[in-house]
Amino acid sequence: MPTSPVTWPPAPDWRAWRHVTKLDPERPLTPAALEAVYASGTDAIVLGGSTGMTQQAVLDLLSRLADAPVPVALEVSTLESAVPGPALFLIPLVMNASDSRWLGGAQAEALARLLPVVGEYIPWELLLPEAYLVLNPDCTAARLTGARTDLAPEDAAGWAALAGQVLRLPLIYVEYSGAFGDMALLQAVRENAGPAHVVYGGGIRSGREAGLAARHAHTIVVGNLVYEAPERLRETVEAAHGN
Amino acid sequence: MPTSPVTWPPAPDWRAWRHVTKLDPERPLTPAALEAVYASGTDAIVLGGSTGMTQQAVLDLLSRLADAPVPVALEVSTLESAVPGPALFLIPLVMNASDSRWLGGAQAEALARLLPVVGEYIPWELLLPEAYLVLNPDCTAARLTGARTDLAPEDAAGWAALAGQVLRLPLIYVEYSGAFGDMALLQAVRENAGPAHVVYGGGIRSGREAGLAARHAHTIVVGNLVYEAPERLRETVEAAHGN
Repeated sequence: MPTSPVTWPPAPDWRAWRHVTKLDPERPLTPAALEAVYASGTDAIVLGGSTGMTQQAVLDLLSRLADAPVPVALEVSTLESAVPGPALFLIPLVMNASDSRWLGGAQAEALARLLPVVGEYIPWELLLPEAYLVLNPDCTAARLTGARTDLAPEDAAGWAALAGQVLRLPLIYVEYSGAFGDMALLQAVRENAGPAHVVYGGGIRSGREAGLAARHAHTIVVGNLVYEAPERLRETVEAAHGN
Repeated sequence: MPTSPVTWPPAPDWRAWRHVTKLDPERPLTPAALEAVYASGTDAIVLGGSTGMTQQAVLDLLSRLADAPVPVALEVSTLESAVPGPALFLIPLVMNASDSRWLGGAQAEALARLLPVVGEYIPWELLLPEAYLVLNPDCTAARLTGARTDLAPEDAAGWAALAGQVLRLPLIYVEYSGAFGDMALLQAVRENAGPAHVVYGGGIRSGREAGLAARHAHTIVVGNLVYEAPERLRETVEAAHGN
């Protein structure tokens, strides 16, 4: 395997992130809301979305984030959105998808297309796989992937053990997309994930939910709040950092 | 997470294995054939099969292997066959399965059943996941999993990069089950697998095939030959060790 002709910066210390703000390239972001993100004390910004991840939308948002005071990561859900610039590239796989395409097929196909063309420029050290459990049956990601969302905490524990202790994947993402989730399930994931880092996202709209989720998750993700009530972001950060 | 009340022996150094002999608990094994395995110089014995992995069959074969001169590993394809004793437990996932059950669903379900009952006795350090590419369309494993077997070397390279460089799984298994495979595909897997260990199995019936496969794979697996012409095992070992 040839050595890359490019020297990449080291990956940011994502394991230290307690609070992450997720921005959706498809949604209009006011300057005031962006200012609130910067002032909130959040540890990192992640660009991601289940739809609308066009190259132009991603580039536009990345350029607005050029002066962000924290690392900017990109969740790569489409090949065309994989543009250079972010400090970290998150590669989502949906463990509980019924459609096997979301369990590696799409990613392998994308890599098969990239390798002969830009293989030596792929910054492998900056790619971080995310083992998702998509748990809100009404969300776009669940519909797209045919996710089996009716999991009891015991079922989720099996997935966590498989991902964290058998496959030894670095990160498990419990995703409730807009709805606040089952904290007993989140706890079961954390207790069975072994050394894997556990991320929680979904329905965090105040310090209360942030505190509850941060009790079990290493990292909590806040997304909708940026668009709905950016002035409340700071209290979610404080709750995450207080735990 | 509670500490296990059991101290497990350290895992064998499977990365040093160049030649592995695979025994199928479902197939009758003559004493002479077993003697040929022991005398062949093979580096390890793996018990595995796509069907017939009953607890009784596995236990029977394990007891016959009690005096094996090399480590004995068990490929766990059914929950009931996961018995104590082996030096290493191989956990197969079929990356190119179309049925997502074989991409973790079955394994997560088995773990969900085991965790509340014997969770603290699961020897996590002895579990080694195998990222399979099942490539012989006529084999049982391909039929069971709905494997997409019509992969060009470029397609397989994408899977190898995903498994080895993105997911950072420890082992990729290129499986042609009984037929000698496409060495260009095997080479593409090896060149794109990053730090992952590459295993090849299928159609090795002489030193010639063994040598060809061992040129690209870290480990070659010989199975059918034990049952068809055990006296030829030794030449496959010599070819593997010669590379």
